[in-house]
Amino acid sequence: MQFQARIDVKHLPGIADPQGATVQRSLPALGYTNVSEVHIGKLIRLVLDAPDEVAARVQVVEMCERLLANPVIEAYEIEIIELAPNT
Amino acid sequence: MQFQARIDVKHLPGIADPQGATVQRSLPALGYTNVSEVHIGKLIRLVLDAPDEVAARVQVVEMCERLLANPVIEAYEIEIIELAPNT
Repeated sequence: MQFQARIDVKHLPGIADPQGATVQRSLPALGYTNVSEVHIGKLIRLVLDAPDEVAARVQVVEMCERLLANPVIEAYEIEIIELAPNT
Repeated sequence: MQFQARIDVKHLPGIADPQGATVQRSLPALGYTNVSEVHIGKLIRLVLDAPDEVAARVQVVEMCERLLANPVIEAYEIEIIELAPNT
């Protein structure tokens, strides 16, 4: 069966987010003075073959720990969606 | 009122996604041969003050067009969540 995984990778609390900080500093110059707490993370989408949803999730967690995220500075949330057989 | 915006910025179809392609090429070397269609985009979170949800969404669309996304190569999806008054 095929599953789509959506992995939301964000900085752990307290870890600097330079990309978010840069955007936040730029917004007032464009006239947006009502924006705060800008955080920029990654959203990874992928498709994998697995016997069931549990196996898919276990593999995605393993891939996050090994490659997709940096567990020292990043947290990740995984969402697994079963794809219809004809897609 | 305060609103949280979550903005999912992804490449338009047909636009090269070098970060996703690099991850996809790396996975077989780690033993993951069942993964395809790896796409890596940005997930932006921010908080803004606005009179209502419609005004918040209008401002976020404008910020996406001007700064947060590159409409020539990227698509974006916006989700607006009202924050409880005490947060």
